[in-house]
Amino acid sequence: MNRPKLMIAHPFDEAVALDAVPAAEHAGADAPHRFTGHTHAAYANMVGPFGGITAAQALAAVLQHPHRLGEPISFTANFAAGLVEGPFQVEARPMRTNRSTQHWAVTLSQTGADGVESVMLTATAVTAVRRTTWSAVDTPMPIVAAPTEVPRAPFTDRVRWVGRYDMRPVAGAIPQHWDGTEADSLTQLWLRDDPPRPLDFLSLTALADAFFPRIWRRRALMTPIGTVSMTVYFHAGADELAATGEGYLLGQARSQSFFNGFFDQSAELWNEAGHLLATTHQIVYYKE
Amino acid sequence: MNRPKLMIAHPFDEAVALDAVPAAEHAGADAPHRFTGHTHAAYANMVGPFGGITAAQALAAVLQHPHRLGEPISFTANFAAGLVEGPFQVEARPMRTNRSTQHWAVTLSQTGADGVESVMLTATAVTAVRRTTWSAVDTPMPIVAAPTEVPRAPFTDRVRWVGRYDMRPVAGAIPQHWDGTEADSLTQLWLRDDPPRPLDFLSLTALADAFFPRIWRRRALMTPIGTVSMTVYFHAGADELAATGEGYLLGQARSQSFFNGFFDQSAELWNEAGHLLATTHQIVYYKE
Repeated sequence: MNRPKLMIAHPFDEAVALDAVPAAEHAGADAPHRFTGHTHAAYANMVGPFGGITAAQALAAVLQHPHRLGEPISFTANFAAGLVEGPFQVEARPMRTNRSTQHWAVTLSQTGADGVESVMLTATAVTAVRRTTWSAVDTPMPIVAAPTEVPRAPFTDRVRWVGRYDMRPVAGAIPQHWDGTEADSLTQLWLRDDPPRPLDFLSLTALADAFFPRIWRRRALMTPIGTVSMTVYFHAGADELAATGEGYLLGQARSQSFFNGFFDQSAELWNEAGHLLATTHQIVYYKE
Repeated sequence: MNRPKLMIAHPFDEAVALDAVPAAEHAGADAPHRFTGHTHAAYANMVGPFGGITAAQALAAVLQHPHRLGEPISFTANFAAGLVEGPFQVEARPMRTNRSTQHWAVTLSQTGADGVESVMLTATAVTAVRRTTWSAVDTPMPIVAAPTEVPRAPFTDRVRWVGRYDMRPVAGAIPQHWDGTEADSLTQLWLRDDPPRPLDFLSLTALADAFFPRIWRRRALMTPIGTVSMTVYFHAGADELAATGEGYLLGQARSQSFFNGFFDQSAELWNEAGHLLATTHQIVYYKE
């Protein structure tokens, strides 16, 4: 007698699961491919889902595309509108395929009650077949206490997605007092999925968006914000991500400019062994 | 008797000039608009044109689009293939227009001798109507000698486009000896258009790509490279750019990771008054 194995899917895997839409016109090598997905309650933000999960869902369409060449090198997601809880469509189109690199355009959309399909996110990605070359990490990991020696940040159940990450701030934690005291915008923290999950390109993409808004740290005011565009550069291949496994990443983020409604954020993510896995940048709308 | 005024167009203005392609189907608010342009000999690189000028040509299609809302906040260009000397087409499409922000997709293509149109560059942009808010520059301009006190880098006529920029390195100049001596990847330099030209979003975009490849500085080896993706975040509006005028910008660039064929570059551009006008990031292919 066969007994079904006890399989508990990780919420991240549930969230980034896409279904390919079968279509005859998808046969061409440069044809777009459409997928459907669904927002996941475990990654809900105050309004709509956590941006990092939406970005990962968009990149998932590229990674699932049957004509993909190589691994992600670069990914840019533009958040056009906050997603509504429910189903969405993703279209991934290979715009140009070279010998070892491939350029992608991605559109994530939702269909309203009126039947009208609206663009919620646009993205571009570059994938490539890497070759082993001379390599160097010129931004060494800051020397901080080990993740096991740092207490986990208290979970605030105000937004669901924060509970999906084990975050252990070592510098620049979220303000305890929202009293308008200005500070620098730097945060350093250990972070990983909760429950732990082996790192891959999709979870690394989501982790790149897991820093709380820099302007909250900078001003100790809970200013309304929204990421407008986010770029991730991958400095690791699938092997390095697999070697990272379920380990913590050290994340470091800070801003360079706050100007008339938009601020930037630059961040780095190292694994515990000190490999710089990704650098990431975003520009964020803020309302004074 | 009318006498024609002596008008000498700046080569940059010639290079970014696009002609709108009239088409009946362009009437819709969300319709793509097609433009045609031409590579410019004054901005030629070793093979094809300087990437900064191609990026500026792509952004020019957004800025010329009749339905554009506001000013550029963010711009990402993905270099899919080296342009061939000659004409090109640019299609700019507003993907989503919100109350104060607008999301763009741009495709630049060329038609080969076989009549086949090939994608050479993809881009996304966000434009927005800015409001005056609390603002702060958290990356102050490094204190360096004034541009008039720094000698101009000798012009090497190996590539035409370098002559279009007055570059005055204050730290991390291009190696004098290609002897494989490793160094840090930092360069600081004053730079502006040559001949001088009042700064605008397009010329700032091109200037963001004017740094010589970081790996050349890092290794003192003339490694073949090619920018794969480049993002510019604008931290200034048209007024701040106009106030900068024909003045020099201080540019600072460095890499964080060189890994198996791709390295990153992050850079800042301040005007002489110390306003951080743009931060910019790119990921670059290198061949060992």
